[in-house]
Amino acid sequence: MKNVHNMNKEFARINEIFAPLSAGYPGAFNLTDDAAIVRPFAGNELVVTTDTLIASVHFMPSDDARLISTKLLRVNLSDLAAMGARPIGYTLNIALPKKINNVWLEAFAAGLAADQAEFAISLIGGDSVATSGPITLTLTAIGDVVRGGVLRRSGALAGDLVYVSGTLGDSVAGLAVAKDKANGLSEQDQRYLLRRYRTPEPRISLGRKLIGIAHSVIDISDGLVADLGHIANNSHVGIDIDVTKIPLSPAVKAALECKILSLDDVLGGGDDYELAVVVPVAARNTMSVFARSLGLPLTEVGFVSEVAGVRVLDVHGCEITPVKGGYVH
Amino acid sequence: MKNVHNMNKEFARINEIFAPLSAGYPGAFNLTDDAAIVRPFAGNELVVTTDTLIASVHFMPSDDARLISTKLLRVNLSDLAAMGARPIGYTLNIALPKKINNVWLEAFAAGLAADQAEFAISLIGGDSVATSGPITLTLTAIGDVVRGGVLRRSGALAGDLVYVSGTLGDSVAGLAVAKDKANGLSEQDQRYLLRRYRTPEPRISLGRKLIGIAHSVIDISDGLVADLGHIANNSHVGIDIDVTKIPLSPAVKAALECKILSLDDVLGGGDDYELAVVVPVAARNTMSVFARSLGLPLTEVGFVSEVAGVRVLDVHGCEITPVKGGYVH
Repeated sequence: MKNVHNMNKEFARINEIFAPLSAGYPGAFNLTDDAAIVRPFAGNELVVTTDTLIASVHFMPSDDARLISTKLLRVNLSDLAAMGARPIGYTLNIALPKKINNVWLEAFAAGLAADQAEFAISLIGGDSVATSGPITLTLTAIGDVVRGGVLRRSGALAGDLVYVSGTLGDSVAGLAVAKDKANGLSEQDQRYLLRRYRTPEPRISLGRKLIGIAHSVIDISDGLVADLGHIANNSHVGIDIDVTKIPLSPAVKAALECKILSLDDVLGGGDDYELAVVVPVAARNTMSVFARSLGLPLTEVGFVSEVAGVRVLDVHGCEITPVKGGYVH
Repeated sequence: MKNVHNMNKEFARINEIFAPLSAGYPGAFNLTDDAAIVRPFAGNELVVTTDTLIASVHFMPSDDARLISTKLLRVNLSDLAAMGARPIGYTLNIALPKKINNVWLEAFAAGLAADQAEFAISLIGGDSVATSGPITLTLTAIGDVVRGGVLRRSGALAGDLVYVSGTLGDSVAGLAVAKDKANGLSEQDQRYLLRRYRTPEPRISLGRKLIGIAHSVIDISDGLVADLGHIANNSHVGIDIDVTKIPLSPAVKAALECKILSLDDVLGGGDDYELAVVVPVAARNTMSVFARSLGLPLTEVGFVSEVAGVRVLDVHGCEITPVKGGYVH
């Protein structure tokens, strides 16, 4: 970390472990200065997002540290994706119990190192403190986007189409697997769901393609219904979803059949980190082209209406109520 | 906060309290979107810095929440000042024990509101979580600076002059007052020192004036000797300080006379948040002009040498050893 307060052995060790993560970014000054420089592409503006994860709430203290850091980075990258931004850098603030050892820290840093390469982002600064409480992790991600191009939650218009990327419900099913509540699923399905739960795929490439195309975008972190509710509220419209169109992985279909999950879990379960995208009808073809070029399913699941709120309609066109309003950790 | 995870009553309340702090910054989207937009002036680059403060280490849980938030913001602004940056916005991540009530949160937000006006900066995003541990606060401040103008710790050259702003040792003396270890000082001196300890003055205006003038700048957060050591190391030079020239407030002089403080405390005590500035000899006049125009003492305290390390010389030119290497909380 750049921060030299508390420059005792403990924190010198943390600096040593994390400084290599800034090597790819000259503006981080090797974490040796008071602050970092971030230079957007000419004509671009910066996008900033931040999340805090805390042990025993967002992850288990016993989880593989590599997966914890990966998820921390990726949930923030997912927010950048939802804005149409290109990742640039991130700051990392960690409050660690004294019992955290080098092995844990090195695994934590290794998770970040792998993802930095994949997403072209670098550590640019941070701070570390000792805590008597649980591990508390804050990551602030910075990206850039062409000026005026940013994707918002507002902007959806009545008549627009609603798409989602990938498949939904994998993460909530993966949580069931993690909690050993998924008996009856094949080992292969369990592995798939666990991976989806632990390692979200921020849809950066999709987000960047949607600039100038989509009227509204959000990443699905609170659950499909809750997050479409944010679009509906911010856009002053309503959204109708056809439940039969929601894209489900074979593993989630199996989990539904085995009653490990309910449809409510899929509609309300959080942590999908797929994008929900609102586009004008004229963009239907473009969405097909994007899906093919990205190798990523983009599924039309509903449309924007003038009636406030989010309605989920079953195979007969009847409203399904109630569905979970969102995921509360 | 922008973050809508955990959107239960608890966090809706936090959103209500903090959203007004973003009202002055359109790019914050009222904290209702996935991320904020930051637009530097044309030709400028962004400067990013972050600090984490934790209860019982950096502040007492019983401290006035208004002073806690003020210090959190100002220590970050001091880092921006040391880079020559103009403040733009900040994100705030708070982990709070459940017992924190509305009165505390409102006082915390009120401290930020007052400083936002003074330093022309806005809240642009954040996150909040409940913790079973101590209050843990992360603030990430973003500013901008003309491209290539940023002030670094490197760049000091042998023969350059070393200046400090304001007076040193006030904060370490203020800590003694806070701990009720300053008997013998006048009430007026105690009040002055407490204020200096609790409410640092980030030297933003000075930092901005130093662009293109100073060879090297750092804010004194770890103590004069430790922070000049950072300049010396990063610039591959040494620094000689004349202890008789170090600017002291009347209150610190009184504390030294009453043996409440030692000179080592002044040289090694942290949290001054004044700037240490290295300029070429030719800038001596300019520094006088800046001091007058800012109404801020800028005192020449030493010079840059070719011999590595920081040496503090007494009235006879003899090296004073050992001095504290820095402040460890």
